Amino acid sequence: MDINQFLITPAESAGRTGPHDRIVMSSRVRVARNIKSLPFPGWAKKADRVKTLDQIRPAVEGLPQMSDSFSESMDNLSAVDKQILVERHLISREHAAKNAGSGLVLNREESLCVMINEEDHLRMQALRPGLQLKQAWLAIDQVDSHLEKKLDYAFSPTLGFLTACPTNLGTGIRVSAMLHLPGLVLAEQINQIITSVNKLGLAVRGLYGEGTEALGNVFQVSNQMTLGEAETDIVERLNKVLAQIIEHEENSRATLLERKPKTVFNHIGRAYGVLANAYSITSKETMNLLSLMKLGVDLEMFSDTNKALIDELFILTQPAHLQKQHSEKLGAEERDAMRAEMLRERLKNVGRPLTPPSGGSLDKTKE
Amino acid sequence: MDINQFLITPAESAGRTGPHDRIVMSSRVRVARNIKSLPFPGWAKKADRVKTLDQIRPAVEGLPQMSDSFSESMDNLSAVDKQILVERHLISREHAAKNAGSGLVLNREESLCVMINEEDHLRMQALRPGLQLKQAWLAIDQVDSHLEKKLDYAFSPTLGFLTACPTNLGTGIRVSAMLHLPGLVLAEQINQIITSVNKLGLAVRGLYGEGTEALGNVFQVSNQMTLGEAETDIVERLNKVLAQIIEHEENSRATLLERKPKTVFNHIGRAYGVLANAYSITSKETMNLLSLMKLGVDLEMFSDTNKALIDELFILTQPAHLQKQHSEKLGAEERDAMRAEMLRERLKNVGRPLTPPSGGSLDKTKE
Repeated sequence: MDINQFLITPAESAGRTGPHDRIVMSSRVRVARNIKSLPFPGWAKKADRVKTLDQIRPAVEGLPQMSDSFSESMDNLSAVDKQILVERHLISREHAAKNAGSGLVLNREESLCVMINEEDHLRMQALRPGLQLKQAWLAIDQVDSHLEKKLDYAFSPTLGFLTACPTNLGTGIRVSAMLHLPGLVLAEQINQIITSVNKLGLAVRGLYGEGTEALGNVFQVSNQMTLGEAETDIVERLNKVLAQIIEHEENSRATLLERKPKTVFNHIGRAYGVLANAYSITSKETMNLLSLMKLGVDLEMFSDTNKALIDELFILTQPAHLQKQHSEKLGAEERDAMRAEMLRERLKNVGRPLTPPSGGSLDKTKE
Repeated sequence: MDINQFLITPAESAGRTGPHDRIVMSSRVRVARNIKSLPFPGWAKKADRVKTLDQIRPAVEGLPQMSDSFSESMDNLSAVDKQILVERHLISREHAAKNAGSGLVLNREESLCVMINEEDHLRMQALRPGLQLKQAWLAIDQVDSHLEKKLDYAFSPTLGFLTACPTNLGTGIRVSAMLHLPGLVLAEQINQIITSVNKLGLAVRGLYGEGTEALGNVFQVSNQMTLGEAETDIVERLNKVLAQIIEHEENSRATLLERKPKTVFNHIGRAYGVLANAYSITSKETMNLLSLMKLGVDLEMFSDTNKALIDELFILTQPAHLQKQHSEKLGAEERDAMRAEMLRERLKNVGRPLTPPSGGSLDKTKE
């Protein structure tokens, strides 16, 4: 498969649906593995890394789950293509910076992605739409079992799987969910939630943007500990916390709609108005306004608009995705104009937001 | 005529057209006159003011130009009705504060308005759409000639018409035009223009808003001197300056469209998007966004929208006009919601702004 086949088309993942997908945009489980007697990527010389890649890659490509997949050495990918993979949350920023000796194997559905020689020899992740942590875990566990037969994992009976960084030691598992929490942000309750979740040993961070910034009201919640807890327990614990966050978000939305419906509609209406009519718009503003429009879709303010369109625009309006559509290199100002043009075009047939018939009742916002 | 007949309907003046009406919203000439041997309103006791009103009012009502008119003593008007007259620029804020002993005679077309016992015994003004200073002057001159036969004006052969304030002494004339200058504001050339115009002995001020603020990019240019210059010379001089301001505004628009078309479209598109989709909007934001939409209409970005709709919304979205439509007293927050509702409703059938086919050429902006 040629990477361009899917890089220039809308992200397949945007159209998929899953449980609680109004709030949980996606679920993800990744595991870190290393090969015994080979140096960790950070220590290894380039020749060693190339050797490691050559050894691991055929095993990954040979997985039944990778029968229709894209496989490439990082030095064969352009900067823009790498950035597109980052914007789709398929590879890390760190992996995008790698070159020869690091690689990537990705299936066509974008539901399974293996980074070779990132921080560890193997970083493999399964993605699912909505809240499907268990399903993602089962998928990656299958892959792991397959690979275990072909590769000699570095494993200690006392410590578990060995990893380059001790924060991944043991199970090597990182379970996470991408959450859309506009209600908690608008109600100014998000910081309280983050503090509570942190106390439970889970990490919360903005998925887009720098530092603590959470553009588009999108947050990632993940486990921090990988040692001393079974994988299924980690998944179970995260599931419980996510159920509570979902409930808080639903409550925030319901309360906002009950107490300040006009304020909520005002945010959503203006967001749509600007997105559908601007001639220049930054990535940051786009994210934040798309988030509000997504909330509007949840509230059924857009009768003929589906969730997929908004989720797709979240991805397609990002810098590398815009750059990919043009042969010449775009400056920031040109990108802002192109982004606005794309939004105007894609939102052309979306009718103006209407006041929900219920005036925004509780029932409309419940799963 | 009952004042409510026209106060609750759209301002008739909004629909009218005149020369250069894309930039010159209206022309106005007012003259100040006083009656010999009666004390000026500021000096007069209430009984004297009532006597003066009783003497002047029948003469004004009897004018052929006032055959279909509304005539009322200020104490018979509610605060909201007075405010509506201010918002339509028919009476001054000072006159709206008057009660018994002051009055108002207004013709149905809202093209002729006489305030009795404002600062002077008579403040009569003629209004015309677009650039029609001479026509306004001729209209008010006719009214003046008629009244002169019935009322004994205070007149000095050396000073001319006597007025309460020396700034009006002589001709008692104030010639003004209401200008929409978004191009000069966007190009940041407006202050330079104001300084130049001031040097020519003309006053420039924002028509809406407090102090130097010019909400909606609407400015009023008027003469400052009333002594030692014939009325027709004042009109002629203002006409010359206005012709130059119009040219500067046209040039600013053309230059902006040539150099930064996307920036101009971006302002206009966003303005429309917010106006058509907000659920709460202040009077101030409304003015400023309507100004941009008006510019968009001039640039033919709204294929099926006419100038009259925007000019009407400029008036109908103001506080007293909104209050007039509701029996209960509205708070500021409720007004912001009502204003947004009116805008959404009135702009419902306005298609989204389109990039002008010419990309915004010079020709499109020329009269």
